[in-house]
Amino acid sequence: MSELRINPERLWDSLMRMAEIGATEKGGCCRLALSDEDKAGRDLFVAWAREAGCDVSIDAMGNIFARRPGRKKSALPIATGSHLDTQPTGGRFDGAYGVLAGLEVVRALNDAEIETKAPLEIVVWTNEEGTRFPFGGSSVFVGQASLQAAYAAQDVDGLNFAEELDRIGYRGQLPCGGRPLDAYFEAHIEQGPVLEATGETIGVVTGARGQARFDITITGMEAHAGTTPMPARKDALVSAAELIRAFNHLGLAHAPSGVCTVGRIACSPNARNTIPGRVDFTIDLRHPERRELDEMILEIRALCRAETERTGVIVELRRVDYEEPVEFDPTCIATVRDAAEAAGHGSQEIFSGAGHDACYLARLLPVGMLFIPCKDGLSHNELESATPEDCAAGTEVLLRTLLKQAKRA
Amino acid sequence: MSELRINPERLWDSLMRMAEIGATEKGGCCRLALSDEDKAGRDLFVAWAREAGCDVSIDAMGNIFARRPGRKKSALPIATGSHLDTQPTGGRFDGAYGVLAGLEVVRALNDAEIETKAPLEIVVWTNEEGTRFPFGGSSVFVGQASLQAAYAAQDVDGLNFAEELDRIGYRGQLPCGGRPLDAYFEAHIEQGPVLEATGETIGVVTGARGQARFDITITGMEAHAGTTPMPARKDALVSAAELIRAFNHLGLAHAPSGVCTVGRIACSPNARNTIPGRVDFTIDLRHPERRELDEMILEIRALCRAETERTGVIVELRRVDYEEPVEFDPTCIATVRDAAEAAGHGSQEIFSGAGHDACYLARLLPVGMLFIPCKDGLSHNELESATPEDCAAGTEVLLRTLLKQAKRA
Repeated sequence: MSELRINPERLWDSLMRMAEIGATEKGGCCRLALSDEDKAGRDLFVAWAREAGCDVSIDAMGNIFARRPGRKKSALPIATGSHLDTQPTGGRFDGAYGVLAGLEVVRALNDAEIETKAPLEIVVWTNEEGTRFPFGGSSVFVGQASLQAAYAAQDVDGLNFAEELDRIGYRGQLPCGGRPLDAYFEAHIEQGPVLEATGETIGVVTGARGQARFDITITGMEAHAGTTPMPARKDALVSAAELIRAFNHLGLAHAPSGVCTVGRIACSPNARNTIPGRVDFTIDLRHPERRELDEMILEIRALCRAETERTGVIVELRRVDYEEPVEFDPTCIATVRDAAEAAGHGSQEIFSGAGHDACYLARLLPVGMLFIPCKDGLSHNELESATPEDCAAGTEVLLRTLLKQAKRA
Repeated sequence: MSELRINPERLWDSLMRMAEIGATEKGGCCRLALSDEDKAGRDLFVAWAREAGCDVSIDAMGNIFARRPGRKKSALPIATGSHLDTQPTGGRFDGAYGVLAGLEVVRALNDAEIETKAPLEIVVWTNEEGTRFPFGGSSVFVGQASLQAAYAAQDVDGLNFAEELDRIGYRGQLPCGGRPLDAYFEAHIEQGPVLEATGETIGVVTGARGQARFDITITGMEAHAGTTPMPARKDALVSAAELIRAFNHLGLAHAPSGVCTVGRIACSPNARNTIPGRVDFTIDLRHPERRELDEMILEIRALCRAETERTGVIVELRRVDYEEPVEFDPTCIATVRDAAEAAGHGSQEIFSGAGHDACYLARLLPVGMLFIPCKDGLSHNELESATPEDCAAGTEVLLRTLLKQAKRA
């Protein structure tokens, strides 16, 4: 067997080729879940995985499992991966890095002619971003969301998840879930400023923030902008502005652990000279401690009630989802830490501010995760960037992590 | 000649038949300028006007002139009318009432076999609402906006004004403007609460508020909602919320004469879990006194500068248009007042909070205007409503107004 080493140029080339699919003018990516671009990205990965000798299977949620067989037929597969869908104005590394790092690990094992005891599987999870549709492939895989609910979801244009999944040809034969895995390890860019600030190359992720998402609808009174005296108005957008401002102060009060974001807003009738009668917007709350997260939710509810009492507008608050804070498996965490040390890369323990497929899988099986730095901590942004050196370092650590787990299996 | 009297049932029937075009579920109308519904409304009016013996001509902006000939060939025509386009969720009376009141006047004169000395013209002005396109037919008619600018304008879907005007078949042969008129009188619902509060049937309009419209763009920094600490954010939507709230307070400080409205907002990327990087919204400022209006504009500019200094987001303020306050012609005002008295309807002088085609025409020729009450002062709302009795009363006053002006001509 020849020397075991990943190929940094091949890894970077694959990342850049994947980034061409849905490439945006500003150097980012737009591969919305189940779009034509998502299909093209999936097709490219599947072709690469087959070239690397993997058996590819698809489940009912469109999750892709690319399996590299192991020596021991009875051994449970060790899984790694992430997602290929992006935000509408997303970057080149969020998700794609974890998938292609997994692919490079398989390619490197092939080059070195190493056969692991347990099989390895590279997994591409469907709709991780949750931007176009509410439910992702990893949440259905662990039973957090039902297949029926995921299938029934519609995007803002009224397009149906199940129909879009069929349209791109990724509704697979495998049932979603109930597929036994030995462990799951995910490599990802940090999407935050911590590693860049400390100068460490590898973040050993110990867990993730809890998260609560709400939709808010404010109903006021539509009226003529020129003839309706200011005191007589029930302006839904003014009430939305009061709440968005108050929610931001709430987030600041819970900083640095807590965050509160209004990312989406729609106004009706949205005409220059009509007082808005209805405004819909979203809230995303996150905190690493459940008690604090629940406290933030109570404060949000109180602010909505107060705005109704103050102005007479109707404020409806609907919870879209709630994820408890997640702690990863201590053995897996140690495996990642040891692998970083063995690969000679500085590391530190870190908490994930973002949700990841790994956070869902941690409900069902042992999970570990590693971060690499990203420029200025920017993500969900077309300017999102990571260096070839850090991408390679993370992949070396992933390789050693999976090998150690494969020995254990 | 038989007795001169308008036909309230015929008037109401025509209003309700016009309201069927673009009718909304909630009982309102959606006839956006140059849409298929606008075309259908125009076609219906043109058919009715021809049945009533009018010669119909169209100008380059799609303004429709339905002429009832008079005895004296050399006499300048006396014009009345309004518009048939509506807000996206508009009502059945805003605009359509003025057009169909004019039509009923012509029909009543036909029934009574009265030939006026001066010809009468019913005018349908294009795109009064300014919701879909910035420039209206009456503003181009008086030279306030150029035909080129109007033609070049695009709607939010990127559709071009001139192409849409061609598409519905209303780009006419007449040049827009330079068409001599003796005077212009417009009947309209008040779109405000004043007449309903005082119990008077007829508002004798003495002038209209000045108006300034701006577009605002806020540029912050797009980033991940879960991983970007609150203090490190440049959230464009939070800054928009701060400004919308401050603008509302500014409007309240200038109440009751002044109003300030943010009617339209768009957020980018508008994704649940991404901090907004860019927000675009509009401001509409109105005040009957120019000095006060200009003061409000200075305060708006100061608030935008302050937000940039406070947060580092970039705030761009672009003026879309500026209309000075308008005062109508004293003789025309007196003619409307006398006509109301002669018709036996209580009246009061009133200031228009809304812009109207009459406000543009007042820059060029003698103009008068009358209001009738509308339920709860609601307009630019699908619930907009006026009673058959008030609609008839306003039309009787319009008839007497036009007859008196025709004698004078």
